Amino acid sequence: MVTIVKKFGGTSVGDVTRIRNAAKLVSDHIKKTNDKVTVVVSAMAGETNKLIALAKSCVSEPTLRELDVLVSTGEQVTIALMAMALNELGHSAKSFTAQQAHIATDRNFCKAQIQDIDSLNLKAAIDCGIIPVVAGFQGIDADGDITTLGRGGSDITAVAIAAALKADACYIYTDVKGVYSTDPRVSSNARLLPQVCHEEMLELASLGAKVLHPRSVYFAMAYKIPLCVLSTFEPDAGMTWIVKEEELMEKPIVTGITHRTDEAKISVHKLPAESVALSTLFQAMAEENIYIDMITQTGFDGKNTDVSFTVLDEDSTKALEIVKKMVPSLNAQGVECDRNIAKVSVVGIGMRYHSGVAAKVFQALASENITVQMISTSEIKISVIVPRKYWEVAVRTLHDAFYKDNVEISEEAA
Amino acid sequence: MVTIVKKFGGTSVGDVTRIRNAAKLVSDHIKKTNDKVTVVVSAMAGETNKLIALAKSCVSEPTLRELDVLVSTGEQVTIALMAMALNELGHSAKSFTAQQAHIATDRNFCKAQIQDIDSLNLKAAIDCGIIPVVAGFQGIDADGDITTLGRGGSDITAVAIAAALKADACYIYTDVKGVYSTDPRVSSNARLLPQVCHEEMLELASLGAKVLHPRSVYFAMAYKIPLCVLSTFEPDAGMTWIVKEEELMEKPIVTGITHRTDEAKISVHKLPAESVALSTLFQAMAEENIYIDMITQTGFDGKNTDVSFTVLDEDSTKALEIVKKMVPSLNAQGVECDRNIAKVSVVGIGMRYHSGVAAKVFQALASENITVQMISTSEIKISVIVPRKYWEVAVRTLHDAFYKDNVEISEEAA
Repeated sequence: MVTIVKKFGGTSVGDVTRIRNAAKLVSDHIKKTNDKVTVVVSAMAGETNKLIALAKSCVSEPTLRELDVLVSTGEQVTIALMAMALNELGHSAKSFTAQQAHIATDRNFCKAQIQDIDSLNLKAAIDCGIIPVVAGFQGIDADGDITTLGRGGSDITAVAIAAALKADACYIYTDVKGVYSTDPRVSSNARLLPQVCHEEMLELASLGAKVLHPRSVYFAMAYKIPLCVLSTFEPDAGMTWIVKEEELMEKPIVTGITHRTDEAKISVHKLPAESVALSTLFQAMAEENIYIDMITQTGFDGKNTDVSFTVLDEDSTKALEIVKKMVPSLNAQGVECDRNIAKVSVVGIGMRYHSGVAAKVFQALASENITVQMISTSEIKISVIVPRKYWEVAVRTLHDAFYKDNVEISEEAA
Repeated sequence: MVTIVKKFGGTSVGDVTRIRNAAKLVSDHIKKTNDKVTVVVSAMAGETNKLIALAKSCVSEPTLRELDVLVSTGEQVTIALMAMALNELGHSAKSFTAQQAHIATDRNFCKAQIQDIDSLNLKAAIDCGIIPVVAGFQGIDADGDITTLGRGGSDITAVAIAAALKADACYIYTDVKGVYSTDPRVSSNARLLPQVCHEEMLELASLGAKVLHPRSVYFAMAYKIPLCVLSTFEPDAGMTWIVKEEELMEKPIVTGITHRTDEAKISVHKLPAESVALSTLFQAMAEENIYIDMITQTGFDGKNTDVSFTVLDEDSTKALEIVKKMVPSLNAQGVECDRNIAKVSVVGIGMRYHSGVAAKVFQALASENITVQMISTSEIKISVIVPRKYWEVAVRTLHDAFYKDNVEISEEAA
């Protein structure tokens, strides 16, 4: 008997017609396969933002605990409607709030992390032939308080439930057909990828491909849940499976080109080249919860170096202020912030087995006269910072460069 | 230390400004008295209907269990916002869903009855100086499923919580100043009643005065909770206390005149005067869950009688059909339905000690040429069925007749 989880995101359940459409997809699957299906849903598109706006129109600083009580009603509405729609199609469906599905989280309101799912209730329902419809994005902490997982949390719920049920697969229904080699709006050559491995997906998700939340990929990898991304509106138009590296049928050197344009670069000039200076600098950022992405160090003259790092645009003013105040005590020469940057990354598990990728990246960018301001690499990705105005050109150039003659190697050849 | 419950209805929390206003009322009370206050709230006005309409736009017959999951989000939104508003005023408030407040009900979705409240959680919060803000109208059944109490349920929640907390009083904040001697929109002579006793309030509530749900009055009576009805918008403009009969300071013969215009009269002609015929007739109604209000039997000719009874307008077509089908087997002559009726009632605990009330009712109605079609009496009320078009005239006439020289008797004189 095959057990699967199907998760529908906000646009997939954006109104009652779409909810009925999603219910029909589930129903058709069950009628065809007799699989045991558990459904996870997000709030209807726009509802979460509407509820947050309501709170902010009521008080200036909403209590976080109460914000979660408020926001969690969004998914509660969808589970009820989805269960009704499945019942109307002749199934026996039952909604589960996080409390009823026993989704235990830590106590961090608005950004809680799932700690455990006791699947007893869900399994009992499934064994009775019931389709459980579970509220995504929410949990219950040890005090019995309602928590929410933060944005993208419904994907995490879906994969965590799949793990708890030892499901055979988890399908993430969204408004795109799957994971593309790059943003199709930027490059008409973008290809729908039939398969990516978890490591690639983690890099792609973290780097700005908005299809899946990185933590949900991490869960799928850790609990070995085959994950599939596909479109609710064109479920037969293709899909992307996120699988283990060893299950990949082919390993292109570069799987995808991603970008993000929501970061800024802070550059500190002539910082004394002592490790204490660097640790003081980044400790100060950590204390203010400023997330640091890339860090590069250049121009060592025997005494001082120039240090650049990227932060989220929204944190950049705060970060700049902090560093400015530290410049005298750090004995540095000055600091500046450049918001006109973009990060473009090439990702591919095949890089592990191929050299020359970096050279090809620089070559492609040089052919368009795009200067590279920062570089950061990992085993399976190369990220570069370029002037923001060139980001689309950079993405297209890199995509065409790698997809024109993307060497595909079989597992045996690797 | 005084413990009280304050309940705010849908219009009292109809938008964020009103929620802040209600929070201010609670805050001012606490700052003035240092009382321990628990707040109970309804859904924002209109929300419950909006959610039901959403369900009906999704499926033709919403599953009742899921309808409760859906509808209960209405109060969950309000508890969160109210707790935030109280926190912003410098208090420490915490929202409680029915599940968190341990409000146990039976399994009747959409019309559940409260069976028990384990006030452990609420008391623990109150002991910590926290203001609990509890979702009205909802509960949890033995399976952990969410239930709702049906319309008016938030009043019941408030009184049940007051009973569980052994509170000193329960204040029901609404959009009117209290209980009136009759509908102020019908008679300009209507008076705000400073006190009514539970028995009177039960009759008034059941007979159509929409201020309080009868079950909440029953709870208050059974658990001896002093209940107060007042306006959220003019809290200083008067109020009505619902008290024990022996606590009434004065006992007017007639306390109030009520009406309802949502019933229809079914008349069965020449029914054999055997008790089996009557029991067969009303058993058939009971099986279809048709609520019977008044029953009268007239014109006994030694063999047959005419039987009339009233049902809710919305049930009248079904009731008529059922009786029509039964006419041959019952050996009756025929059946007809009159929807142009209204019920007008005079209620007063003082009737127990005074005769002549019925005579005065008929005299007043006769003076306006209003014919009485049915009569029903209890120890403290007289109800009459009159043509619907005369209901306002009947109410005004009866109100003026009794309030012109309403004999007031002290407890000693009774």
